[in-house]
Amino acid sequence: MTSIKVGEEKLYEWTADYAGVWMYHCGTAPTLHHIMNGMYGMVIVEPKEGLPPVDREFALVQSEWYLGPQGRTTSMVKASIAAPAPDFLVFNGVANQYKDHPLEVPTGGKVRVFVLNAGPNIDSSFHVVGTIFNTVIKEGVRLDAGNVGNYGAQAVDLAPAQGAIIEFTTAEDGMYPLVTHAFNFVSRGALGFFKAGDGDPKK
Amino acid sequence: MTSIKVGEEKLYEWTADYAGVWMYHCGTAPTLHHIMNGMYGMVIVEPKEGLPPVDREFALVQSEWYLGPQGRTTSMVKASIAAPAPDFLVFNGVANQYKDHPLEVPTGGKVRVFVLNAGPNIDSSFHVVGTIFNTVIKEGVRLDAGNVGNYGAQAVDLAPAQGAIIEFTTAEDGMYPLVTHAFNFVSRGALGFFKAGDGDPKK
Amino acid sequence: MTSIKVGEEKLYEWTADYAGVWMYHCGTAPTLHHIMNGMYGMVIVEPKEGLPPVDREFALVQSEWYLGPQGRTTSMVKASIAAPAPDFLVFNGVANQYKDHPLEVPTGGKVRVFVLNAGPNIDSSFHVVGTIFNTVIKEGVRLDAGNVGNYGAQAVDLAPAQGAIIEFTTAEDGMYPLVTHAFNFVSRGALGFFKAGDGDPKK
Repeated sequence: MTSIKVGEEKLYEWTADYAGVWMYHCGTAPTLHHIMNGMYGMVIVEPKEGLPPVDREFALVQSEWYLGPQGRTTSMVKASIAAPAPDFLVFNGVANQYKDHPLEVPTGGKVRVFVLNAGPNIDSSFHVVGTIFNTVIKEGVRLDAGNVGNYGAQAVDLAPAQGAIIEFTTAEDGMYPLVTHAFNFVSRGALGFFKAGDGDPKK
Repeated sequence: MTSIKVGEEKLYEWTADYAGVWMYHCGTAPTLHHIMNGMYGMVIVEPKEGLPPVDREFALVQSEWYLGPQGRTTSMVKASIAAPAPDFLVFNGVANQYKDHPLEVPTGGKVRVFVLNAGPNIDSSFHVVGTIFNTVIKEGVRLDAGNVGNYGAQAVDLAPAQGAIIEFTTAEDGMYPLVTHAFNFVSRGALGFFKAGDGDPKK
Repeated sequence: MTSIKVGEEKLYEWTADYAGVWMYHCGTAPTLHHIMNGMYGMVIVEPKEGLPPVDREFALVQSEWYLGPQGRTTSMVKASIAAPAPDFLVFNGVANQYKDHPLEVPTGGKVRVFVLNAGPNIDSSFHVVGTIFNTVIKEGVRLDAGNVGNYGAQAVDLAPAQGAIIEFTTAEDGMYPLVTHAFNFVSRGALGFFKAGDGDPKK
């Protein structure tokens, strides 16, 4: 790692040797300060032979916001405590954005989600209410569709800096909430919806 | 999902497509309020061909209680904070019940436990002191007895809404504590015992 | 389990049936008090046929210190709360020791680390900045080098009392930080370095 000054430019070139859902972020000390201000991103590396085709793909990054006082940006003090209380815990940076603007999926279609927990501090228990994940590849460890016994998964635990590829299918039209199933955080912005079909479940 | 009013009745019919240890709970907002009051349960779905026979099977659900003021039930405020302090963290709803009434197992027999962490907020590190799990199926990902290298497991990490099937054998008569190995919670009710044989270790 | 009095001596003999990275600790109540004072250790059990040869092996135990008032040792009160704030979160007992004295590895060589999270309370997201783990055996569940798709891992989530065997290679000379990627804890002592070659990245 090298440092970069204001106005400078540096080019990183690298070979994607390993498949997975990766987090990148700058490492200038204090690293926490950079991550908590959004200086990170997700890199998706598919296997050389590609992933099987699906009907829709999404990329979701869970992260935390620790707001500073009025007129300032973020609070390093709030983010540094051992049991931190993020003001918001969000998907793709904005609280409840997929509650306001649901992610549309075709009913019965295969949906793939690349999920990353950027943290910087809080674990995720990623869950989509009303679905079962038939495929989960978390940090390379796999649950494959059609496994012996036909086991599925209901939640994926992601520590900060862990990523996963998950797949599911919606059985019928409806609104399927996406949350972290650590429910004390859901009201802090960690709520969205997948809208299958017209969103109206058949009676 | 649909809502149900007081006095109404609704029937859910569904096909158990995927094997696993599942959590069910109502989703009426605020969901946290329902889960924290015990409105949840465990569904066990075995593979179509069944699980191998064992000598004893148990079902254990870890969950949290956030008590309200005297004369009230629970406290939504206490359960909603980012770093919540449950008054009790328990197995099957009651603090220390299997400390007072140990779960009896035959010494040398195969024991299977279906474990669910219902949360709503706190992770579990499920552990049975004095044993090693030779089988763990956590959210479909497997450690099988007799694997190459003969690896075992000492603890199973379960985020809220995650479940696992675990198996172990007690080597001799004795009292084997079951805990979450996050030891700050053990004194809040997350302690029980498996009693093998007469509970008295051979001297 | 049996008790032992001051001045007494007891000998435990046991057969290592299962491979893995194990935590041992005394179980005299309150167990938390013993673990928080450092009364624990790591046991490494390799498969009967051994592990493949590597260039360097290390053993790292993550744990927490809860300091008592001046002149005393540790604080049971601080360690017992639901959302504890350890004064230090460390590798092998001493804050930042591998920041001050980096762990030396040969550039391009295979490095194996046996990692244990002794807790007693806090989860780990073990990560080595600048590397990708091509092998992870966490509580017996495996990501193997050369797996189908060539997936790798960037972080290993370890609940208290969980262990893992990880392997990686450094691509070039440099200083590679080792951390728990729950970044609110990094400034509490959970920072070290692997020094590859002379530690100076090629320009």
